[in-house]
Amino acid sequence: MLAYQLIERKRNGRRIEPGEWEELIAAYLRDEVTDAQMSAFLMAVYFRGLHRDETSALTDAMLHSGARLDLSHLTAPRLDKHSTGGVGDKVSLVLAPLVAALGAAVPMMSGRGLGHTGGTLDKLESIPGFRTELSLDETRAQIDRIGCALIGQSAEIAPADRRLYALRDSTATVESIPLISASIMSKKLAEGLTGLVLDIKRGSGAFLPEVERGIELAQMMVSIGHRHRVPVVALLTAMDRPLGRACGNALELEEAIHALHGDGPPDLMRVTYALGAEMLVLGGLSLNRDAARRAMEVAISSGKAADKFREIVEAQGGDSRVVDDPSQLPQAECCELFYAARAGFVASIDPRRVGFGVIELGGGRSKPGDSVDHSVGFVIAARPGDLVRAGEPLATVMARDADGIAAGRRAMEEAIRIDDEADFPLPLISHRVTIDGVMPYESSDTPVEVTAQL
Amino acid sequence: MLAYQLIERKRNGRRIEPGEWEELIAAYLRDEVTDAQMSAFLMAVYFRGLHRDETSALTDAMLHSGARLDLSHLTAPRLDKHSTGGVGDKVSLVLAPLVAALGAAVPMMSGRGLGHTGGTLDKLESIPGFRTELSLDETRAQIDRIGCALIGQSAEIAPADRRLYALRDSTATVESIPLISASIMSKKLAEGLTGLVLDIKRGSGAFLPEVERGIELAQMMVSIGHRHRVPVVALLTAMDRPLGRACGNALELEEAIHALHGDGPPDLMRVTYALGAEMLVLGGLSLNRDAARRAMEVAISSGKAADKFREIVEAQGGDSRVVDDPSQLPQAECCELFYAARAGFVASIDPRRVGFGVIELGGGRSKPGDSVDHSVGFVIAARPGDLVRAGEPLATVMARDADGIAAGRRAMEEAIRIDDEADFPLPLISHRVTIDGVMPYESSDTPVEVTAQL
Repeated sequence: MLAYQLIERKRNGRRIEPGEWEELIAAYLRDEVTDAQMSAFLMAVYFRGLHRDETSALTDAMLHSGARLDLSHLTAPRLDKHSTGGVGDKVSLVLAPLVAALGAAVPMMSGRGLGHTGGTLDKLESIPGFRTELSLDETRAQIDRIGCALIGQSAEIAPADRRLYALRDSTATVESIPLISASIMSKKLAEGLTGLVLDIKRGSGAFLPEVERGIELAQMMVSIGHRHRVPVVALLTAMDRPLGRACGNALELEEAIHALHGDGPPDLMRVTYALGAEMLVLGGLSLNRDAARRAMEVAISSGKAADKFREIVEAQGGDSRVVDDPSQLPQAECCELFYAARAGFVASIDPRRVGFGVIELGGGRSKPGDSVDHSVGFVIAARPGDLVRAGEPLATVMARDADGIAAGRRAMEEAIRIDDEADFPLPLISHRVTIDGVMPYESSDTPVEVTAQL
Repeated sequence: MLAYQLIERKRNGRRIEPGEWEELIAAYLRDEVTDAQMSAFLMAVYFRGLHRDETSALTDAMLHSGARLDLSHLTAPRLDKHSTGGVGDKVSLVLAPLVAALGAAVPMMSGRGLGHTGGTLDKLESIPGFRTELSLDETRAQIDRIGCALIGQSAEIAPADRRLYALRDSTATVESIPLISASIMSKKLAEGLTGLVLDIKRGSGAFLPEVERGIELAQMMVSIGHRHRVPVVALLTAMDRPLGRACGNALELEEAIHALHGDGPPDLMRVTYALGAEMLVLGGLSLNRDAARRAMEVAISSGKAADKFREIVEAQGGDSRVVDDPSQLPQAECCELFYAARAGFVASIDPRRVGFGVIELGGGRSKPGDSVDHSVGFVIAARPGDLVRAGEPLATVMARDADGIAAGRRAMEEAIRIDDEADFPLPLISHRVTIDGVMPYESSDTPVEVTAQL
């Protein structure tokens, strides 16, 4: 009867009280609420939405369903970053060691590929031997020792979220801002953080393409963090084209390693530095974002960031030679250049098409449990706005065989649009959302002096 | 994947095609679509609604999930009535034998008590020995022989509806007009009818209290019937007070027997005659509604209607002595008059409170499978609008014991409101809905001559 009443109440657009959220989640985990009841409830939430109080109470209920990573003995700030997911987004692989190298504790729990987007765990598992399934005890010990762990969501953390997510994934109730917020925040709060930075993607390749919805999501999560006394800052970043050049697990890891050695593509570095600056300021490790950026540049140029990544790979059982020689990573059997069919501007590069292209090559999952070929993917040298000649190489396709090459070529044909005019790409970083509100993103704390010259 | 896509499509407010409805229902019955997926889908339907084409296709899919009653060899019209359910509504018990006595074949499938409303099957089972679970073959044989069968929904008919209904009942997705329409019509169309009359209740005791929603439901079902070449007429009738005086299984059966003997309460008779007139005209058994009404009056005064009921009771194994001596029905142990606490007008009699009162006495189910005490209930002599004195008897409570009497008294205290002014009760029959549209209800075909006298 409890479940029925809560479904009916939410269906009718009325509120669920904090104690009722706890009861509902606990009863669901005890199988007293059926999957059918829960999915009807979630669909009602999809349509009716949740108030911030309700979202916060749901987050709490999911958080309390499992264990937490207790890092309260550390003096270092505990910082993490979460991205809503994109194509070519290997920021975590650079950011975690970089920020850890500067003194933060980074207990980074990541996910696997989802839909058209890649997952940090799959990318890390390109490294021979790398273990992402650490227990909470192992994770804590590793963070004590080297300040960072790059792991999957432990079964001990927020089991309610795990069950709810699988249910939402099969019942088309994923795309709900309060449900997304509660799912992410219940896991992040379980990491025992002192600060969290969010990378909210916008544009055609994002789960929530519209900027208004992205801002809404950011505000919801910032507010949940605030209620749990964890300061959260969100940046809205562009996902109307892939981030960086490499798309595919080992290829992205390789690009991340280049970035740690100071040789990353400019868009990847800008997003990484922007998110890292927020983390370092939140953690009190830098006085302001300009100082944070300078510290990160030094951590990279001095080799400290790459060293930290090497430590992490070793600690998690991976072959750390890849950090200095990425050719140790899995290499695709076949490789072919993709050329521009005509002259013109690169008008757009559709990240969804690229992401699904990676899956077609075998580098992602069509359904959970599919195995992943880490070696395949694309390296797309062309950027939106580039003026290209007919026959000029735009990208490289890495595939298992000739069929893969053909599929990859088709994906590139469909993803890369060449036209007489370039589209206006989205600004790489457009908004900054904090508990104080939404602001246009300014990369620097110091106002830039603009000298108009005629 | 099929299920996911259909959920997502409906969630986004887009249409499901006829073939997809068939696939969805078939896959659900094969357990390839989970209950969780189906309930999320049904909740999306609750919010997005269904177009008439979609509702008709869903009806078809549920109809095709099971067997049909083949009565096509009969020359008699095959007619039935369905009510959306009310308190004190014993119309079916009078109407089925009455219309059958006038030459119609009436394969009436009814339900059990649901929520605060009673069910025809429970009322019939007050008769010692009466069997409501007939197979389709038995049903057909009985209709061949005596023109009428009063039965429960056979497991052979629309199994998809049965499963979907149980799911909706546990996930708060019952109150959806297209889902209600498809559920009712899939079962009624399986009866192989040539005409169907609907009694759509409105007012506080109805499942859809608002008249606009009742009309919408009526139009939806009339339209589905039309698409299946079964003419359907719906009347909207009042359920802001109980119908007739008796509420409770054996008590209602007794009132129905009195009605068949020509001694029914006026409101019950008016609704019965109105619905019967529509059936007889639809079936071509009467030229118009006035003629039908006269025929029905004769069928009652001549004893033919009561004879037909006796035949039905005998055919279905019941003790037919009850038809001439209702005291053979189960009698409650305790019986107490309920008196007016003050003088005034009977302002309202809340049918929900009365219906839940019957359940509290043991005469209905709080959950499926509960056993039912047929003897208990209320006979409410007072009618809304009556002027009563303090201490005047308003009702009789029939109960199992003193606790039951106390509970029944409380129910009457809360249900019957006496005030200085009477409320305006709803018109007993207000609207008539056919494929040609919605009209105010006129009881007669012949325009009444109004002579204004000063």
